[in-house]
Amino acid sequence: MDLTTAKTDDIRARHDAAHTRMDELRGRNLSLDMTRGKPSPEQLTFSDNLLIAVQPGDTTGEDGTDLRNYGGLAGIPEARRLFADYLGTVPERVIVGGNSSLAMMWDVLSNAVNFGMPDGEGPWRDQTPKMLCPVPGYDRHFAICERLGMEMINIPMTLDGPDMDTIRDLVANDPSVKAIWCVPKYSNPSGESYSEETVQALASMPTAAKDFRIMWDNAYAVHHIADGLVTLTDIMDACDKADNPDRPIVFGSTSKLTLAGAGVAMLASSLVNIKDHLEKIGHGTIGPDKINQLRHVRFFKDMDGILEHMKKHAESIAPKFAAVDKALEKHLGGTGLARWTRPAGGYFVSVDVLDGCAAAVIAKCAEAGVKMTPAGCTYPYNRDPHDANIRIAPTLPGIDEIQIAMNVLTAAIIEVCTKKLLEDA
Amino acid sequence: MDLTTAKTDDIRARHDAAHTRMDELRGRNLSLDMTRGKPSPEQLTFSDNLLIAVQPGDTTGEDGTDLRNYGGLAGIPEARRLFADYLGTVPERVIVGGNSSLAMMWDVLSNAVNFGMPDGEGPWRDQTPKMLCPVPGYDRHFAICERLGMEMINIPMTLDGPDMDTIRDLVANDPSVKAIWCVPKYSNPSGESYSEETVQALASMPTAAKDFRIMWDNAYAVHHIADGLVTLTDIMDACDKADNPDRPIVFGSTSKLTLAGAGVAMLASSLVNIKDHLEKIGHGTIGPDKINQLRHVRFFKDMDGILEHMKKHAESIAPKFAAVDKALEKHLGGTGLARWTRPAGGYFVSVDVLDGCAAAVIAKCAEAGVKMTPAGCTYPYNRDPHDANIRIAPTLPGIDEIQIAMNVLTAAIIEVCTKKLLEDA
Repeated sequence: MDLTTAKTDDIRARHDAAHTRMDELRGRNLSLDMTRGKPSPEQLTFSDNLLIAVQPGDTTGEDGTDLRNYGGLAGIPEARRLFADYLGTVPERVIVGGNSSLAMMWDVLSNAVNFGMPDGEGPWRDQTPKMLCPVPGYDRHFAICERLGMEMINIPMTLDGPDMDTIRDLVANDPSVKAIWCVPKYSNPSGESYSEETVQALASMPTAAKDFRIMWDNAYAVHHIADGLVTLTDIMDACDKADNPDRPIVFGSTSKLTLAGAGVAMLASSLVNIKDHLEKIGHGTIGPDKINQLRHVRFFKDMDGILEHMKKHAESIAPKFAAVDKALEKHLGGTGLARWTRPAGGYFVSVDVLDGCAAAVIAKCAEAGVKMTPAGCTYPYNRDPHDANIRIAPTLPGIDEIQIAMNVLTAAIIEVCTKKLLEDA
Repeated sequence: MDLTTAKTDDIRARHDAAHTRMDELRGRNLSLDMTRGKPSPEQLTFSDNLLIAVQPGDTTGEDGTDLRNYGGLAGIPEARRLFADYLGTVPERVIVGGNSSLAMMWDVLSNAVNFGMPDGEGPWRDQTPKMLCPVPGYDRHFAICERLGMEMINIPMTLDGPDMDTIRDLVANDPSVKAIWCVPKYSNPSGESYSEETVQALASMPTAAKDFRIMWDNAYAVHHIADGLVTLTDIMDACDKADNPDRPIVFGSTSKLTLAGAGVAMLASSLVNIKDHLEKIGHGTIGPDKINQLRHVRFFKDMDGILEHMKKHAESIAPKFAAVDKALEKHLGGTGLARWTRPAGGYFVSVDVLDGCAAAVIAKCAEAGVKMTPAGCTYPYNRDPHDANIRIAPTLPGIDEIQIAMNVLTAAIIEVCTKKLLEDA
């Protein structure tokens, strides 16, 4: 029954039933955490042999370098080659870094704010810099901008990626619009992948800022669910052809391929940007952990090794996403109270409930011992203008825990949204 | 013969002999690198078992955390405890980070410049910040300040540490003097260790800047040469007692204990500074590589394990320092052309040649295939006001290479310095 058009009595009946159900669930003293996109212990175990991939006496790089010693700011050649394959480019355009792609993004933006970008007009801090933020998006992207004093502008997402008409207009006319965040594949949290047209438009659109940058966080490049990889148009290729080679900066990480926090992160861009970035980070570090890069090369061997490895992840997490979808369908299907995604990859399911209900739903879940990502966190400044978006992270918990958590979440959605309908009636 | 007071003919004879010797050495097509303080392959091999210290199935921390997953911004409890012992404090006052203490120093200063320090008056960038730099010192410290726009003020070193009269006067009267670099033990490059009086004076001196900080880079805390550790007065203890608990920020690293570039770095300070630093770095990273921290805890076990381990390093490098000293004594002893250090620890020998000669000496060495650290690099802005200091890094090369390089260096010193004496005569 579509409750948004139902009779008051029917709505009230559903509300009361959900209320009773929530009372019952609260009594169970649950403690479940659905907040963050973390791999499960099973997924981590797929990479346990990474730990012993580099043995004593076997620490010389392919170019003869003793990888136990200092040096190598851009990463070891064999890792740059492997991750060039992964990012769809050539080794010279890749920097392989430490354990965190977020740290590389921070470095890029904080250095841009403080020192500027090639072809730009000095430090961004002097140019009231603005960042375009497709929403909903990744909270930690937004936190970086807020910290660095970059004003964030919400860009609505479509099924093909961010709304290009809005973007084109903003970047063409305002030279203080300096960059855009993109999670182009299996987007966080809503799961869309950018279409060919979107990628081409981003690559070729005229921008008032000469040093406009696309922060292309390809966090889920090979993170499909079940079978079949979505194909993403190559942004660096598109920008090269559009004669904007310095526009994109592409990020990747093995945190969700191997060990979260003990992986390696990487960045790819034009030779101009690579040179600039190395010069910038050279002030603050001697170089990344080369041994851990060697571990990854030895463990994966090549791009085929990465793809084979990711099949295990897909098989492991697909039932969890199915359990989420099944619960949403069972309890909310046809009610009109919520829409949700069925992503082909990535780490999240995004649920939009009736406007003005998300914060209350999340508070209800917390009362019943189920921790959801705080309301609003998928929006800049933690302000969801519709108070509607809820992000579900199903990879870490077991299926049984997901089922219980989804019972709580769906009951809370029904209770809160029907209350809203009754109040609005 | 003291050539600085010798007859012109005697000087000329030594000059001509050195010139001939340099011609001969140039003909050998040498290629030796004495530029950086890197451990030797033998030293690195002492830590090869670090590579296999964490095995599959053995990745749970002492508090039950799965260390293969995200999280833990301050480091794992067992590593904080081990390195609290190492730094002479309690685990709550320690952050164990990634592979680079230099990166932690960059983070502290760049965040201070951009966002300020607890108890301060906002971002240092708005306060024309100045840094006191004991000289000669570490080039990468100076590079950070130059990049961040902190004006550097040279402070002469004495045998007891930096000249406290100069420091006291500057910090008491100028609120824009925000910090001082200290390598308090086996100083880079001159090898001094700060006396008890110096440490107490740094801890208790009145400062005009409320948020004055001591950047205490204890890089060589356990890096003695041969027997006998120098004891350093604890700066955090001294500052606590002087009611300046937030003044010192202490840095350490295992880069020269285990594997250079694949070690772990650490920072210790007051609880106020620790909280502040975690808040700051939390914008740009999810956390350090916890598995590598676990490797270090498993490998060393405890502080005694660290000290035992460092005896191997001492035995390995002592003959190299002896070879340097022997060559300097043999070729330059009594000539008055150079003074040099006989450090009890650390990674460098510091040579002061006659004023105005260091750059020319280093150029001569380069012509003969021996790469020395560029002239001036031990001073802020690469400007050695006396053009006198040369830093020798003897740990990486073999003894035979050191002997050849020292033949070149000493011949170059004699050739250049006698030329200077002849010109000045």
